[in-house]
Amino acid sequence: MKIAIAQINPAIGDFEGNIALISDRAEEARCRGCELAVFPEMAICGYPPRDLLERNDFVQACFEAEKGLVSAVGGIGVLCGTITPAAGDGCGARLHNSALLFKDGHELGRVHKRLLPVYDVFDETRYFVPGGPAAPVEFNGHRLGITICEDMWSGIEECAALPFYRENPVAELAGQGVDLMLNISASPFALGKAEARICVLQQHARRMRLPFLYCNAVGGQDSLIFDGSSLAVDKRGDVACRASSFREDLVVLDVNLPEGEVSSEERRSWPECRAEAVCNALELGLADYTRRCGLHTVAIGLSGGVDSAVTAAISCRALGPEKVLGVIMPSPYTSAESIEDAEALAENLHIKFITLPIGDIFSSYLNVLAPVFEGRPPNVAEENIQARIRGNLLMAISNKLGHMVLSTGNKSELAVGYCTLYGDMSGGYALMSDLPKTLVYEVARWLNRTGEIIPSRVLAKPPSAELRPGQTDQDDLPPYEVIDPILEFYLEKSLSPSEIVQRGFDRDTVFKIISMVDRNEYKRKQAPPGPKVTSKAFGMGRRYPIAHRYRPWVHV
Amino acid sequence: MKIAIAQINPAIGDFEGNIALISDRAEEARCRGCELAVFPEMAICGYPPRDLLERNDFVQACFEAEKGLVSAVGGIGVLCGTITPAAGDGCGARLHNSALLFKDGHELGRVHKRLLPVYDVFDETRYFVPGGPAAPVEFNGHRLGITICEDMWSGIEECAALPFYRENPVAELAGQGVDLMLNISASPFALGKAEARICVLQQHARRMRLPFLYCNAVGGQDSLIFDGSSLAVDKRGDVACRASSFREDLVVLDVNLPEGEVSSEERRSWPECRAEAVCNALELGLADYTRRCGLHTVAIGLSGGVDSAVTAAISCRALGPEKVLGVIMPSPYTSAESIEDAEALAENLHIKFITLPIGDIFSSYLNVLAPVFEGRPPNVAEENIQARIRGNLLMAISNKLGHMVLSTGNKSELAVGYCTLYGDMSGGYALMSDLPKTLVYEVARWLNRTGEIIPSRVLAKPPSAELRPGQTDQDDLPPYEVIDPILEFYLEKSLSPSEIVQRGFDRDTVFKIISMVDRNEYKRKQAPPGPKVTSKAFGMGRRYPIAHRYRPWVHV
Repeated sequence: MKIAIAQINPAIGDFEGNIALISDRAEEARCRGCELAVFPEMAICGYPPRDLLERNDFVQACFEAEKGLVSAVGGIGVLCGTITPAAGDGCGARLHNSALLFKDGHELGRVHKRLLPVYDVFDETRYFVPGGPAAPVEFNGHRLGITICEDMWSGIEECAALPFYRENPVAELAGQGVDLMLNISASPFALGKAEARICVLQQHARRMRLPFLYCNAVGGQDSLIFDGSSLAVDKRGDVACRASSFREDLVVLDVNLPEGEVSSEERRSWPECRAEAVCNALELGLADYTRRCGLHTVAIGLSGGVDSAVTAAISCRALGPEKVLGVIMPSPYTSAESIEDAEALAENLHIKFITLPIGDIFSSYLNVLAPVFEGRPPNVAEENIQARIRGNLLMAISNKLGHMVLSTGNKSELAVGYCTLYGDMSGGYALMSDLPKTLVYEVARWLNRTGEIIPSRVLAKPPSAELRPGQTDQDDLPPYEVIDPILEFYLEKSLSPSEIVQRGFDRDTVFKIISMVDRNEYKRKQAPPGPKVTSKAFGMGRRYPIAHRYRPWVHV
Repeated sequence: MKIAIAQINPAIGDFEGNIALISDRAEEARCRGCELAVFPEMAICGYPPRDLLERNDFVQACFEAEKGLVSAVGGIGVLCGTITPAAGDGCGARLHNSALLFKDGHELGRVHKRLLPVYDVFDETRYFVPGGPAAPVEFNGHRLGITICEDMWSGIEECAALPFYRENPVAELAGQGVDLMLNISASPFALGKAEARICVLQQHARRMRLPFLYCNAVGGQDSLIFDGSSLAVDKRGDVACRASSFREDLVVLDVNLPEGEVSSEERRSWPECRAEAVCNALELGLADYTRRCGLHTVAIGLSGGVDSAVTAAISCRALGPEKVLGVIMPSPYTSAESIEDAEALAENLHIKFITLPIGDIFSSYLNVLAPVFEGRPPNVAEENIQARIRGNLLMAISNKLGHMVLSTGNKSELAVGYCTLYGDMSGGYALMSDLPKTLVYEVARWLNRTGEIIPSRVLAKPPSAELRPGQTDQDDLPPYEVIDPILEFYLEKSLSPSEIVQRGFDRDTVFKIISMVDRNEYKRKQAPPGPKVTSKAFGMGRRYPIAHRYRPWVHV
């Protein structure tokens, strides 16, 4: 049996567009001789619609779209994600997250997601009622074991640190006699996730001696990047087919049932290193975010530093250099080298740039504030005024010319609060906000692998905000090579300060960094969204109170 | 039996402080002859700790604190909220949200919350495993039916639009033979909530012919305001005792068991109108937020309009006028009346104010931006520059003097995007952000009930942002008397545009307003937190994607 994995990029709430996308891809699969085309989780409405699912009109529109789709496609079976009304389970949820199998106007099977993630960025019990145990679904004489996303992430302790689930939907289905396992997903990208998925599929396939086909969504939805990277493994767990990562794709495979052999001509290349994967994720996130917001050009403040350089370089890859405007905003503290580096970057990228010096505006602020500032020593106030002048200029350009402003701050800065709210944090999308500073450098070096795009001096010089004479980041902070591993233990592993000290870090440094992280929660609550690339990003996935009084370093 | 309802204000993560608070209040109750003191849900760690519950160190500290508390209190029974380790349920959750009854070092009973809310601001299945059916707990010869917060909000369709729960923990307990029902809560304030709680208690009490005692937390935790308003009803459902609203309290009642009679000397007055309730909620929210952030003074931009006037007046009530700084920042478009009104307000409130004209700074921006703006007509860009200059000045004062900036925007503006990101939206706390404009006026009139605090001209003149010559809000928007009911249907009731039109509103107006709400989601994602006072506030409780493509008004 020939099957197509149709790895599409549905837009949330674009029912007409999504239905057209599914119909077109199903027809393409039919023309290529497939009996079945497989689409991602919630392909009809897009994922995650979040509280749009609480709206009757949205839910009804999805049901209507599903009806239209079922009657529109002919000559091929289609498996795709949708939603189904559910009896209230007691939490206010009233829908199932479902996989629908249909052909020629007839529904052949409908399976509901059983394991509903509620950790990190996921809130699935807010909307969905878990499905009960399900049976395999018959299709053209074969028994298909159908699961949805999280359903396959159970019983596979080898592959990832996962929540423990009592139920193992894949094993339960296999126990009932299945010829082919399928999973439809909307599984967001994080570093290492694609490898974890392969591991999960392989372990299941090997234990059950069954082939396993996996179809993931692709696309950027606010801060979540769905990377696609769909694949199929044969009954030995060997990878037989790989769809692209970070773009739409349709791959065809031959599945020999019940023998469990899988063959395919199609095995796309995946990113070769994590810098490439991150770069691809950011490009997709930015392209989809701007497109879906109806903005097609971006403005970026170029400081001569590495963060803005990488932001600009990735924007050019995502949107094209003609859609990117660089804005150089020197202050009295900006070095000549920084201006040269920013200009050299703009020239390397072939982007237009303008230079707007901020010295006169800064003076006019100091004049007006003289009665307030008089007799008080210079402090962060004077530094932040400059950052906020730059934010105001960028937003003025945005309001006048229609560009979306991209903020350029990285995760390390955002974590310790080394950034100015309403200043360099201003923007519609925070492209680097989940990249630790050390990863920003890694991506910069990868971008330069075949020739200098980011001027080499940018990578060589010590990072500086240049908001006071001779300032460097390391005047105020430990080196990023020290900060970043501490942050990873604290943010991604949820370790306590004392557990981190036990990992061999200097006690005072750990306490300093962590108290900075905690004190700056208020800034992050007002940050623009940005693409998640690590296992734990700021935003929806990390929900901390601002005004709490937990100070674990005091008594340690 | 004498029982104390100890309505306390625990701080999240302040284990020492919370334990001391509980011990002190228990001792006070003992001295007043009580056999039992009842404390709120999660009183030991504070509510809601959110993802701090994912940290082993936080959870261990809570267990230790509980041990310390149990051994510290003597001579009186204590019922209080805590957390308990749970066997994983399959969602990653690993705790119970529990009520612990102990006396003289001995645990007498432990009951786990069964109904875990996951709607609106609540994420309880992210952390907690639901408890199973529970038995009444024996205490001094009586059978207590103990439930936690949401547990009592089932089977009471008369009282509120609630999610449907299959289980009814109160009725199940009553069926096992109970002398007294108790519920410990951390139930956030919203308009009408206190009345709904009375209704719930009364309905349960009347059906079961049992007295019902309710202890709620008090205090501001970021955007959630816990209003206390604890109470007890007798077996007829008559209210026998009321604790204060919006402040800590300890009330003693005499419960005659098993007869079910309740008597108490203590019946505090509650707010007499919704303006008073809102005002009290905002005061508590602001006082606790500033205190817990370690900032004790605030700065407010005074425009001469009603929003900033009410913000300043409430700040004075919450913190005292000596803690409030008014900042008047006139532009070339500011009317003389506005400056006079702002000054009159400052004088009425006895607050210090400074005047920082923004005209020169505005000119310096226009000079620098001349090459960008040249040949393009004036638009929102020029208006926003002014708002952002004001934001920058306020933040400079904050950075230099240590005041927290309060933003002054109301919910109606925030909904339709009639506000400037990084401009008037700047601040640490958005005090009015859940008050529709019409409610702001209602609160203003209430503040003026015994004499003019807010100058009467502020209430009489048409609202204006004064960012261009002769501008009023109604140049750009329908009147707030039209906008606010549409917003209430859309935001609080989740009605669709066409359902709202069916309620008798003009179709074009509805579509205009709702498309503005949807288009401005990106602004609200970057707004500071502010106290929730309606049934649905922006923030944690309303989770909409930014870049979705759902346009329900296009085809209606």
